[in-house]
Amino acid sequence: MKLIRFGKQGVEKPGVLDEKGIRRDLSNEFTDWNRAFFQSGGLQKLGTLDISKFPEVDSKERLGSCVSRPGKVICIGLNYSDHAAESGMAIPEEPIIFQKGANTVVGPNDDILIPRNSQKTDWEVELGIVIGKDARYLSSMEAAKEYIAGYCISHDVSERAFQLEKGGQWTKGKSCDNFNPLGPFLATPDEIDDVHNLRMQLWVNGVKMQDGNTKTMIFDCYYVVHYLSQFMTLEAGDVISTGTPPGVGLGMKPPIYLKVGDEVALEIEGLGRQEQKCSNA
Amino acid sequence: MKLIRFGKQGVEKPGVLDEKGIRRDLSNEFTDWNRAFFQSGGLQKLGTLDISKFPEVDSKERLGSCVSRPGKVICIGLNYSDHAAESGMAIPEEPIIFQKGANTVVGPNDDILIPRNSQKTDWEVELGIVIGKDARYLSSMEAAKEYIAGYCISHDVSERAFQLEKGGQWTKGKSCDNFNPLGPFLATPDEIDDVHNLRMQLWVNGVKMQDGNTKTMIFDCYYVVHYLSQFMTLEAGDVISTGTPPGVGLGMKPPIYLKVGDEVALEIEGLGRQEQKCSNA
Repeated sequence: MKLIRFGKQGVEKPGVLDEKGIRRDLSNEFTDWNRAFFQSGGLQKLGTLDISKFPEVDSKERLGSCVSRPGKVICIGLNYSDHAAESGMAIPEEPIIFQKGANTVVGPNDDILIPRNSQKTDWEVELGIVIGKDARYLSSMEAAKEYIAGYCISHDVSERAFQLEKGGQWTKGKSCDNFNPLGPFLATPDEIDDVHNLRMQLWVNGVKMQDGNTKTMIFDCYYVVHYLSQFMTLEAGDVISTGTPPGVGLGMKPPIYLKVGDEVALEIEGLGRQEQKCSNA
Repeated sequence: MKLIRFGKQGVEKPGVLDEKGIRRDLSNEFTDWNRAFFQSGGLQKLGTLDISKFPEVDSKERLGSCVSRPGKVICIGLNYSDHAAESGMAIPEEPIIFQKGANTVVGPNDDILIPRNSQKTDWEVELGIVIGKDARYLSSMEAAKEYIAGYCISHDVSERAFQLEKGGQWTKGKSCDNFNPLGPFLATPDEIDDVHNLRMQLWVNGVKMQDGNTKTMIFDCYYVVHYLSQFMTLEAGDVISTGTPPGVGLGMKPPIYLKVGDEVALEIEGLGRQEQKCSNA
């Protein structure tokens, strides 16, 4: 299944993409794709429905984030060895974890807002994991598979001066408004042949900047979910952004950063495409 | 006004302490002390009510966190110069920011859960700020005052090995279950003579470990709210923990950490008292 949310920001309705890619409105059946939905087994119920009977949605409707605002957004830092190298940082011995404000989550095609006083707004295409049920002290990586609702594109927009030049903790450069476009859809695991072999690409003004593959992750999705659950309860609907491959602006020589008017596009194999314009915050 | 929440975890009701310290049940008038309440001017409405007409609450009822689960919990690191020194870290030139998972927020007297595989669970008494309306790019520290709903005790429980020995980002040691007892009550600013002159104390098994004062904060409350609003939107109901004075376990020679069975008590002048027992996660 491919879950979407559509409509104006803050009042999005839940929907799905059917097998032909047509958007269907599921709001008569479900309130939202949120913690309550996932935790109560909503995905199983959704799987029993005949989607073709639900009303079509106008394809011009804005897409919201593919799931409702999460309880938390956890990010894995430097989880691709080549990206660690381009950032001038060591390959981590265990996952580096930081958080983004959950209010940064927006639709896949909403504007990237260049923060005021920003000189170093950067891009990061990432594979996002959405948690399917509350996970605490999972016993194994194998067990972790059962706690994943699905996957999506997560754009971990980052302000490098805020992140790296102001005290050592990264969240300051990760939590600006609109810094986490999420979607266009959440793909349940059955939609993906091998989540650890997906091409990931990102373009700025049509020029390809990132071209990686999830197979070069240092800590894979199951490792990450199992690992995180040893330190915190992952709640249904939480989002984990699993790190970015090489090609961010910080890694260019000289570095390149986003400016108002720039256009960014992101794709992950099987997970669709995001397109954002950069505008003033 | 002094706002409380009471009842079983997850289904707390909103209440207040009246002038005699008696708990009053406001659940017939308000849904909860949450973002919607603060953002819609609920505090002003609450101020017009005759509290003495509302039903009393049994004083044996469990207290929940003094506000509903926040959208985010932002913490200021090393915000007391003496604490920075005892931690062996430099005094920061500007506020260090990190996040705790908002699901760590629990009642003021709920158990501290010692995480599995933890050797270094530590305490931190902190002044908590609750945001009263959405704050974005505030123009001045003076303006920041209008965005503060009130103050409370925030216990920023921390696991030092998870925080400091596993990759450099702190959130991993800050987001374990029950790591943020909040309350017992939210005091609106008019209840506090001078928020920057409040004694803060913490005891472990009756032995005083922390005895500081908010007057030795490096970056004061108005500075912090103004500063944060330059990097992210602070939403109504968000919580900011403003840092801890000296006396944490990490700073002892040799260090001392919490173990199952320990009893912790915290007080901040004018903001009441928390009491927690340590138990297994």
